[in-house]
Amino acid sequence: MSSIHDLWKETLVNPDFRSTKPRSNGCTMVLDKGLGLGTFHDLLQIAGEYIDFIKLGFGTAGITPQKLLQEKIALANQYQVGIYPGGTFLEIAYAKKMHHHYLETISSLGIKWLEISDGMIELSLSERSSLIRQAQEIGFDIITEIGKKSAGSALDIESFLRIYEHDRSHGATFIIVEGRESGKNIGIYDEKGHICIPRLKAIFHQTDPDAIIWEAPQTSQQIEFLKQIGPKVNLGNISPPEVLSLECLRRGLRADTFSLTSFTK
Amino acid sequence: MSSIHDLWKETLVNPDFRSTKPRSNGCTMVLDKGLGLGTFHDLLQIAGEYIDFIKLGFGTAGITPQKLLQEKIALANQYQVGIYPGGTFLEIAYAKKMHHHYLETISSLGIKWLEISDGMIELSLSERSSLIRQAQEIGFDIITEIGKKSAGSALDIESFLRIYEHDRSHGATFIIVEGRESGKNIGIYDEKGHICIPRLKAIFHQTDPDAIIWEAPQTSQQIEFLKQIGPKVNLGNISPPEVLSLECLRRGLRADTFSLTSFTK
Amino acid sequence: MSSIHDLWKETLVNPDFRSTKPRSNGCTMVLDKGLGLGTFHDLLQIAGEYIDFIKLGFGTAGITPQKLLQEKIALANQYQVGIYPGGTFLEIAYAKKMHHHYLETISSLGIKWLEISDGMIELSLSERSSLIRQAQEIGFDIITEIGKKSAGSALDIESFLRIYEHDRSHGATFIIVEGRESGKNIGIYDEKGHICIPRLKAIFHQTDPDAIIWEAPQTSQQIEFLKQIGPKVNLGNISPPEVLSLECLRRGLRADTFSLTSFTK
Repeated sequence: MSSIHDLWKETLVNPDFRSTKPRSNGCTMVLDKGLGLGTFHDLLQIAGEYIDFIKLGFGTAGITPQKLLQEKIALANQYQVGIYPGGTFLEIAYAKKMHHHYLETISSLGIKWLEISDGMIELSLSERSSLIRQAQEIGFDIITEIGKKSAGSALDIESFLRIYEHDRSHGATFIIVEGRESGKNIGIYDEKGHICIPRLKAIFHQTDPDAIIWEAPQTSQQIEFLKQIGPKVNLGNISPPEVLSLECLRRGLRADTFSLTSFTK
Repeated sequence: MSSIHDLWKETLVNPDFRSTKPRSNGCTMVLDKGLGLGTFHDLLQIAGEYIDFIKLGFGTAGITPQKLLQEKIALANQYQVGIYPGGTFLEIAYAKKMHHHYLETISSLGIKWLEISDGMIELSLSERSSLIRQAQEIGFDIITEIGKKSAGSALDIESFLRIYEHDRSHGATFIIVEGRESGKNIGIYDEKGHICIPRLKAIFHQTDPDAIIWEAPQTSQQIEFLKQIGPKVNLGNISPPEVLSLECLRRGLRADTFSLTSFTK
Repeated sequence: MSSIHDLWKETLVNPDFRSTKPRSNGCTMVLDKGLGLGTFHDLLQIAGEYIDFIKLGFGTAGITPQKLLQEKIALANQYQVGIYPGGTFLEIAYAKKMHHHYLETISSLGIKWLEISDGMIELSLSERSSLIRQAQEIGFDIITEIGKKSAGSALDIESFLRIYEHDRSHGATFIIVEGRESGKNIGIYDEKGHICIPRLKAIFHQTDPDAIIWEAPQTSQQIEFLKQIGPKVNLGNISPPEVLSLECLRRGLRADTFSLTSFTK
């Protein structure tokens, strides 16, 4: 390609704000609710560079035709994207006392990351550490999620921090702050999906920001996180068609975050 | 495939709740507003097992390039999915006195199901039975829809039941309760899309539940129907990206319906 | 194909309302926020006949892998669809005093239309005419956009008309009325996305309607424009899955606009 394009890319699209993969911050986690194989490949081809994780939402991994599931996993691995089933699926297995079997199955499918959550079931701290240990022995890298999934479940900061410290000290790489698919009336969001800024700040200032992934399904939430924390915030539950839009927001390539960047006329 | 996956699927994804196709209940009808051919094939490949009907929304069948339309119909037939144009298109043909021509055309395209509605036009009971008869003579299986499409058109239960009895006794296999694409301010939904439970119950208790398809485009509506009626409720106007999510809801593989299933710790 | 299909298409899908491409009115402009290559091709194949422009939203053109971007441009040109980056990207280049370089780069990529806007930056009328002139010299056809992107930016009609006259007299083919992706609290939309009809009428009656493209991302807005102005209104920021739905609305093939057409029973 001619150098004019390279110059354009280097000067206009703000590479300074972004590291390349594998990243330790500025991560984007996509929520896949059941993309077909062609669409999945399409997404990785155009936006794979900007996707760090793909979560196979809910229990969809269990009802996807197995051949397709394996092709999706192979594609994700090829594009250096961590792919893993939603924590809900492990919770179901745990409730049925089949979690060990579950862990072995998804490991045998080529999945390398595991999400551990207790959005529906209850896990004591000792149950959490036991699950983390089992998963580590099989070879998984660990993501845990903190927060209940029932409507109106506001995060209690004190208990969040207690679980955060526990999970991190037991080896969890990332901690997800629950936001669900809706981003409303859950976690740090009110009924309209607005962020409770004091709770955001309480978590931000008492944790390692690089270890936190905020589930932020709505564009307005993504913008607010970028304003509050900056382009290197880790964001999750991004809808597949929104990945390039979010990447534009991170780089000041969309009106809403243009003023956050260093551009001056 | 190794037996570990089979064991996983048999034990975790609740096959008990679901029959295989062709189903007499637990049907899912998808609203296709104009999927491209690749995306359409993609959808059938990943979720065809869970899709019973695809409605080609509004009059889109008439403005889809004919070669593509025929390829979509062939694919749907191959995956044992009943595909048919939205009732609106037949209403337009009826208003132009071209319904016989319309029926012959879609039949010649390989379409086997017909939706008869009067969301915009008025059909007397004798006009309904005459249309049903003409369609049956050509060989169609019949789905009728009850409900007006204008905003604020609440269902009148008495008149619903009169038309229901009429259509069923004339051979309609399924009766759709109008919900439109929005699911708001229409049929049994209020302006915010909440279900009017007394009306739902009035219909449910005075009809054959297996013969009713509830148009339920919003996730919150799907959850409410599953709570009120159970996993074998027939639901329609499902958005293509939501098919696997709905299947998870039916099987208790998503947090919102987890407690409806028989899992115990 | 047998003549029955042709008869059907000629009589039922209202060709009278629609001209073929290239059109001078009734244009549809699609907002592409980052479609993958397969999905992009899929869209053109099924709906290319009804798409006049595709806007590569925000600065997505700058972060799309260059080979893919070139394939998208080639496909759009092949389907006679004008493809161009959102005005925001040019504003960023302008703010960095790199607009000449930007114009040359996108021209070298095969892009023939240019959108000039000042949604984030300020452009005086003389700066607008200078930018238009530079772009024309490179060979671009010009679309300008009028309106600020910050929330609550209601259009001032007098200043709109002043800029409209200026841009038209300097050779802009189309003038876009800002509506953003949301269609809320912007331009002629209130916080709920309702159109301010007096402002719509003020613009409509004091401009050449064929030269105006109204950004109308929401279905309810598209319906209202069709009711107020008719099927030949130019509409923009249409979501890719909604193109066939909008085309149905234009032709009276969807319930909401059925009564606008000449059908009588």
